[in-house]
Amino acid sequence: MPTYTPPMADTRFVLDQVLKLDRFSNLPGFQSATPDMVEAILDQGGRLCADVIFPLNQPGDAEGCTRHDDSSVTTPKGFKDAYKQLAEGGWIGLAAPEQFGGQGLPHVVATAFEEYLISSGVAFAMYPGLSQGAMAALHAVGSDEQKALYLPKMVTGEWTGTMNLTEPHCGTDLGLIKTKAEPKADGTFAITGTKIFISAGEHDLAGNIVHLVLAKLPGAPEGSKGISLFIVPKFVPDADGNPGTRNGVACGSIEEKMGIHGNSTCVMNYDGATGWLLGEENKGLAAMFIMMNAARLGVGLQGLGIAETAYQNAVAYAKDRRQGRALTGPAEPDKPADTLFVHPDVRRMLMEAKANLEGARALVLWGALQNDLTHHAASEDDRTAADELLGLVTPVIKGHLTDLGYQIATNAQQVFGGHGYIREYGMEQYVRDARIAMIYEGTNGVQAMDLVGRKLPRHGGKAAMALFGLISADIAKAKDGPQAELAGHLEKAVGQLQAGAMWLMQNGMKDPNNAGAAAYPLMTMMGVVAIGWMWLKMARAAQAQLDAGEGDKAFLEAKLITARFYAERILPDAGALRRKLEGGAESIMALPVESF
Amino acid sequence: MPTYTPPMADTRFVLDQVLKLDRFSNLPGFQSATPDMVEAILDQGGRLCADVIFPLNQPGDAEGCTRHDDSSVTTPKGFKDAYKQLAEGGWIGLAAPEQFGGQGLPHVVATAFEEYLISSGVAFAMYPGLSQGAMAALHAVGSDEQKALYLPKMVTGEWTGTMNLTEPHCGTDLGLIKTKAEPKADGTFAITGTKIFISAGEHDLAGNIVHLVLAKLPGAPEGSKGISLFIVPKFVPDADGNPGTRNGVACGSIEEKMGIHGNSTCVMNYDGATGWLLGEENKGLAAMFIMMNAARLGVGLQGLGIAETAYQNAVAYAKDRRQGRALTGPAEPDKPADTLFVHPDVRRMLMEAKANLEGARALVLWGALQNDLTHHAASEDDRTAADELLGLVTPVIKGHLTDLGYQIATNAQQVFGGHGYIREYGMEQYVRDARIAMIYEGTNGVQAMDLVGRKLPRHGGKAAMALFGLISADIAKAKDGPQAELAGHLEKAVGQLQAGAMWLMQNGMKDPNNAGAAAYPLMTMMGVVAIGWMWLKMARAAQAQLDAGEGDKAFLEAKLITARFYAERILPDAGALRRKLEGGAESIMALPVESF
Repeated sequence: MPTYTPPMADTRFVLDQVLKLDRFSNLPGFQSATPDMVEAILDQGGRLCADVIFPLNQPGDAEGCTRHDDSSVTTPKGFKDAYKQLAEGGWIGLAAPEQFGGQGLPHVVATAFEEYLISSGVAFAMYPGLSQGAMAALHAVGSDEQKALYLPKMVTGEWTGTMNLTEPHCGTDLGLIKTKAEPKADGTFAITGTKIFISAGEHDLAGNIVHLVLAKLPGAPEGSKGISLFIVPKFVPDADGNPGTRNGVACGSIEEKMGIHGNSTCVMNYDGATGWLLGEENKGLAAMFIMMNAARLGVGLQGLGIAETAYQNAVAYAKDRRQGRALTGPAEPDKPADTLFVHPDVRRMLMEAKANLEGARALVLWGALQNDLTHHAASEDDRTAADELLGLVTPVIKGHLTDLGYQIATNAQQVFGGHGYIREYGMEQYVRDARIAMIYEGTNGVQAMDLVGRKLPRHGGKAAMALFGLISADIAKAKDGPQAELAGHLEKAVGQLQAGAMWLMQNGMKDPNNAGAAAYPLMTMMGVVAIGWMWLKMARAAQAQLDAGEGDKAFLEAKLITARFYAERILPDAGALRRKLEGGAESIMALPVESF
Repeated sequence: MPTYTPPMADTRFVLDQVLKLDRFSNLPGFQSATPDMVEAILDQGGRLCADVIFPLNQPGDAEGCTRHDDSSVTTPKGFKDAYKQLAEGGWIGLAAPEQFGGQGLPHVVATAFEEYLISSGVAFAMYPGLSQGAMAALHAVGSDEQKALYLPKMVTGEWTGTMNLTEPHCGTDLGLIKTKAEPKADGTFAITGTKIFISAGEHDLAGNIVHLVLAKLPGAPEGSKGISLFIVPKFVPDADGNPGTRNGVACGSIEEKMGIHGNSTCVMNYDGATGWLLGEENKGLAAMFIMMNAARLGVGLQGLGIAETAYQNAVAYAKDRRQGRALTGPAEPDKPADTLFVHPDVRRMLMEAKANLEGARALVLWGALQNDLTHHAASEDDRTAADELLGLVTPVIKGHLTDLGYQIATNAQQVFGGHGYIREYGMEQYVRDARIAMIYEGTNGVQAMDLVGRKLPRHGGKAAMALFGLISADIAKAKDGPQAELAGHLEKAVGQLQAGAMWLMQNGMKDPNNAGAAAYPLMTMMGVVAIGWMWLKMARAAQAQLDAGEGDKAFLEAKLITARFYAERILPDAGALRRKLEGGAESIMALPVESF
């Protein structure tokens, strides 16, 4: 049976020692996020995840969701009760404004908790997860009336939300959608069309489901400039704001998928359903991007969260399973064989996992902090800077962390040998569950194009220059100290990344396909470097604690060793990626389609 | 619905133009392998695969195998009839000696066919595939009587074979096995124990199943020096060699797995079953390695075969699916959107697949040719040289090609976006099916250790030097011609590989963990270089045909473009791998186990 323990010590190290949240205690939300408070939150939340939600993960995968003839959907056994505990504990509204019944805590704290939630079962975590994206869009572009009607119920978890974008013939290219919104006399709209791949589209966890639906108004401009966003509740709220008449939207079927079986992925049929315009006419894509950006960070977190559980179980197995002998001679001669831990290649896989996971955790929390600063930093300049940094790293967090999540889950399965391929051990589920994160909320190739096509060139490359400036400053600070070698490795990788970005600027103009061909290697390089930067920060923080005689010595020394591993075994990828990138588009685009 | 077309033109290009099989027409088996004959074989075999076997692949995955209360196992619908056609067509015995009823064709031709068989359904292909390994062991170490009794029935497919190695507590470390063989008065042995993960262990396709079982004789030495190999037929052959009394071996259960559902992976219980010693007492491990080496090449071929089908379907989808516009402006302005083929990042994934698949095909066929030369080359020196080259590349073919197979299947799924995650499209099955090939017949980490611990140092590194010599000779020949640039890229990568091997020799002695830590990057480098070498060979062969005005111009020009892609986009990995390798074992081994 797989197990899961929330990595509290590591989370707190990042929050307290690396990000130093106490620096922000003057900002709204952060006042209450004292180290003691955060510890209590993570401890209590972590227990709910490990004790209540995690035990449902493997059975939930086996059982899946069931659609009934009346189009209702039943989630796996135990999900309903666990969701109730999650909602009643206030966990869904951790970072929601107090005005709407939330706890008003910083996003960075909520994100730390959400990692645990995902690690305990991504299929389950997606039900409240989809609500977060819908709430973000409602909060950003909803009218006061809409916010008052929907947000309090979604913050408590009484209602959930969804995102309805994809149609059978289009996912990435939303300009092609066919779903129609016909204006009615009372100011509402009749929504008609079919949406597919709607996560949490129908279920039995909540009293109402608030669908946010992309559709086209009559005579709307062609393409993405003619898309509007609508609120289509499953039950139309009555005068008291309670679920009233059943709306004309129903789950037509549940998709049979590779993984995340515990989440209902629905075909949703809209048959003249009543909808309300959310935000402005034909500005739906912009509103949708608010959802998408929140969702993309959440999906990046999925890469980390699923892989963390896979890694923990691989470590447990490697400690327990005895096979072969250490190359340096028997480590435990009195036992019939040594544990898997003596084998360098097993350790290589576990170290790659550990180095990437801890680095990814720091990066995601750093990103969540930028989200808080975007809203709450003291000056307009600071808010803008945080917003731009977050925009820049969002596709990297989504793309690179989900690539890593799949790789780590795959390697964790590999540690189990043949047992990893058998359902019973649970490892193959992590691989299947991790796979979708590379695809949804924009495939990772789309993330790469978002990075090179929009985020990098924006405002003359201001955000990228700011990021490079931050990294260089940390390298400079480390150059004469005990982290000099690590800083040197990172500096070299940053140099490769900058050279790659420079090549892109010079050659992307000449031929836009060069930008397209360079996108993925550049995204991966930026991910490799960003996590390397986090390792420099973590190593310096660990060293500072060690020098001061504070903290858990073994934990801090492990940080220094793992940082070195990252520098020696992962940062070198930047060089190869740069060479690939500089290969350009020619050999990629040269082949006639018939020759494939 | 997925489709599959045997890549006949590419296979024939490798056989005729790259390997130039007609050079060997003086050798036994090759006389009948004229280009026309090979074409007829591949054409007929390919049609059986595409028309009869491939349609069973997706339904076979959904249905899986069923174990009944009497321990019998039913394979998915249609498997029995397809197997009958395969057996009756003589396809199982393509490369078996005519003496035992085989066709006596070269392995290189049989391997070309086996790729198509695997592409059509790996779960199905494993039933005859396991027989190949068992036949190889019987042929190598069986007595004349044993060969006469078993081989003819296995060659025709009337009976199948299995390999029984793994037990619940050991897979890699077979010295730990507990299955016992008690000598009986009549010269047979009573075999008792439990074997797990036995592919094709029980099924309804054949009249008998010949289990080759590792077990320990009473008083046998400890560890791997005390293992013997036994023949344990499901039905003990009667005096006429027909299936007689039911033996004391039965399938206890079928494993629930991530993939290859159409193949029955059995727990096999031996309860005093009658067995016959195969080969010498306590020399079972050596005999087993004969099976394993054959099986490892077959598993490498699985990486290629599964990925080929995944690639073909991704190409078809990319041609059909319209989403977004070319970065250089609409390619088909009259259509609502361009096809996926206009997007450089989609092409990147398809080109990576194509470049690796075609290179892997050449490498596997080159390896199979070494297998033929090992047995049939004219001189003892040539036979030994071929044997050593084959030994060296076997772990690389198994390890690197299965890693590639999983990556390519994953990327092919990625091309489908969300549709790739849905069962209906068939793409997620390829990923699940490809995953096991990295694990069984020795995990890829074990392959890497076989490479650096046994194959590389053997006879003072003679095989590696021979391989480098062959590659260098091809580079030298290309240096002043139109393939000079490609040769230059390859030379650089070979330099990285040689430097890595040198580092390993110098540092592996000092600390054996350095060898363990270097193993995987070295295996991957060798795979990257070996496929690059094949691309140089293919590019030169294509150029020669183009210069002579022979062959299919579009096909040959595609070879040149794809070779360039491989050089620019894949060979650069060698540099990063070398740097990782040279990081050594220190940061991998430094962390105390408690710190994971």
